[in-house]
Amino acid sequence: MSERILNFSAGPAILPEAVLEEAAQAVREIGGSGMSLLEVSHRGKHYEAIHNDAETRLLRVLGLDAADYAPLFLQGGASLQFAMVPQNFLKPGQAADYVISGDWGAKALKEAKLFGDAREAASSKSDGYSHIPKDLSLTPGARYVHITTNNTIEGTEYFALPDVGDVPLVADSSSDFLALSRDYSRFSLLYAGAQKNAGPAGVTMAVVRRSFLETANTDIPKILAYQTHADTNSLYNTPPTFAIYVVGLVLKWVEEQGGLAAMEARNHAKAAVLYSALDDCALYQPTVTDKADRSLMNVTWRFTDTAREPEFLAEAKTHGMDGLKGHRSVGGLRASIYNAFPAQGVQRLADLLRDFARRNG
Amino acid sequence: MSERILNFSAGPAILPEAVLEEAAQAVREIGGSGMSLLEVSHRGKHYEAIHNDAETRLLRVLGLDAADYAPLFLQGGASLQFAMVPQNFLKPGQAADYVISGDWGAKALKEAKLFGDAREAASSKSDGYSHIPKDLSLTPGARYVHITTNNTIEGTEYFALPDVGDVPLVADSSSDFLALSRDYSRFSLLYAGAQKNAGPAGVTMAVVRRSFLETANTDIPKILAYQTHADTNSLYNTPPTFAIYVVGLVLKWVEEQGGLAAMEARNHAKAAVLYSALDDCALYQPTVTDKADRSLMNVTWRFTDTAREPEFLAEAKTHGMDGLKGHRSVGGLRASIYNAFPAQGVQRLADLLRDFARRNG
Repeated sequence: MSERILNFSAGPAILPEAVLEEAAQAVREIGGSGMSLLEVSHRGKHYEAIHNDAETRLLRVLGLDAADYAPLFLQGGASLQFAMVPQNFLKPGQAADYVISGDWGAKALKEAKLFGDAREAASSKSDGYSHIPKDLSLTPGARYVHITTNNTIEGTEYFALPDVGDVPLVADSSSDFLALSRDYSRFSLLYAGAQKNAGPAGVTMAVVRRSFLETANTDIPKILAYQTHADTNSLYNTPPTFAIYVVGLVLKWVEEQGGLAAMEARNHAKAAVLYSALDDCALYQPTVTDKADRSLMNVTWRFTDTAREPEFLAEAKTHGMDGLKGHRSVGGLRASIYNAFPAQGVQRLADLLRDFARRNG
Repeated sequence: MSERILNFSAGPAILPEAVLEEAAQAVREIGGSGMSLLEVSHRGKHYEAIHNDAETRLLRVLGLDAADYAPLFLQGGASLQFAMVPQNFLKPGQAADYVISGDWGAKALKEAKLFGDAREAASSKSDGYSHIPKDLSLTPGARYVHITTNNTIEGTEYFALPDVGDVPLVADSSSDFLALSRDYSRFSLLYAGAQKNAGPAGVTMAVVRRSFLETANTDIPKILAYQTHADTNSLYNTPPTFAIYVVGLVLKWVEEQGGLAAMEARNHAKAAVLYSALDDCALYQPTVTDKADRSLMNVTWRFTDTAREPEFLAEAKTHGMDGLKGHRSVGGLRASIYNAFPAQGVQRLADLLRDFARRNG
């Protein structure tokens, strides 16, 4: 195998090497079965054990109880959730509040408007999404409030959840899923595409409070109803078996590392190394103005002289670093340092940043 | 590795061994990149080549032109297509005709009724879906006619497509995708979950005629509009990269084997071996009454004395054969012998059937 690249990609993204090794073996053969994991029935014993184990771990890692929450494995990414959430919980004339802290939240709001009175409760768009909007204009009796816990493109993250009273809190947690030790019982519905912290592209995890689910609309396509998947243990139709298997391995890895508290501590330490290098060098300009909102997952910055960015990217490549270009919609640079990203890799980038600034200061 | 099982599972199902080997290697590392395929960005060069190659092969294998057809890689399986087809092409007051040749077609019709005047153009339900209904009651000016080309549960298959005049023909081809050399330009929209003949669970292939697409509804969620995916080369959001990679490998394998004509010839030969064993022994009762409709993919039968079925299944297991139980909704036995199922494996099952009948006649 070639030398492993320091992959700062925003997603699909770096995964633990032990997980990759086990997943590769399962593609050859699963558990002495004489069959590849890709070949076995989703209703057979080999896969059943994998599926149930992943569900159990998902709730355990988040600190949620199966009596209160249904764990779901879905498809279509967060983008399908943008439609499913309002299709399940909103009707014409009913209000839902959306906090717009980035581009993905704006997309979620747009889809919701097709189903009901979806409102912008706050937005930091006019400031280039450079912070998490805290001052919310909430609608009394809204069906739910929707937030994006981490903004992959803009590099902001929620560290304190907003107080929304008795209104159900719904969150797109795609890019910081499994990264922080939050009180997950604050959420009535949390969803996340796997391809950042939790696995390969192709599966969406969700946890939904059972009492919230009871209030869902019923006159919708069966495949798009959360209830369908809760009722069938996410086996209404063929699930993305391989992707769920890998998510199960990642959840096991997270537990072995000490769970979400340990993940969060490591993520804080890693991000601090990077942000301090950026703050210390005048050559760099972190894009998030409110330091308290800086993402532990996606560190975004620009060069004060943006013409130097390609030069830095090229030099980083010679040091085995890839995926540092910012999202095509905003430009600049971005280092995505998800759970599986090694601390010494972050240190290497920080060292290069300081060295580059010294040489080009 | 353990001895390879003869896996008669209906899906997820057997895949070519060379494909599995290459896929396992890609999970370790893709193309000397120092990264796993699961880790690389869906917008980076490593994946881009895979994606475009799979799209090109998909159209080429089906004999379709990119000027006329958009190749799509979607998620959610056929079950999501059951909702997407009418959401895109049907409105209240508009009619669509559904031919119900099995349980999956019935499910498709049910979802369509949420969107418009979806009608049953024919059904073989009263005969236990033991044949493909040929006598269609079509609605003049219908938006489309929907068929299921192969009925996985009931073991029937279309060998001549119905004449629907100028009305667009839409088909769920999940369980005989890439198995027959049809005139695919007869279809305005063809979709298929990958997990039978084409790859692992987690990706849905579709080809849609561009002129049909122009007639689609536009006031629907962006993620559920075929147009969105056609406009973005199936990269509107993160696609299931690993599943698409494996589908690309399977398409390459199909081309290397001689394409769909060669696949069809082999599938006819394999199925003939099995059906002739079933027809020759009074102990067995094929469930499809019209021999012309017998599926090449899913061979279904019962024992005249159903009490003997568990005994046979147990004996088959000792011969390294798995997945022969019929679908839980119909019982009996089913041998799914998709493209990758080896001819000598089919012969071994036929031999066992004849031997078992001789011993228990």
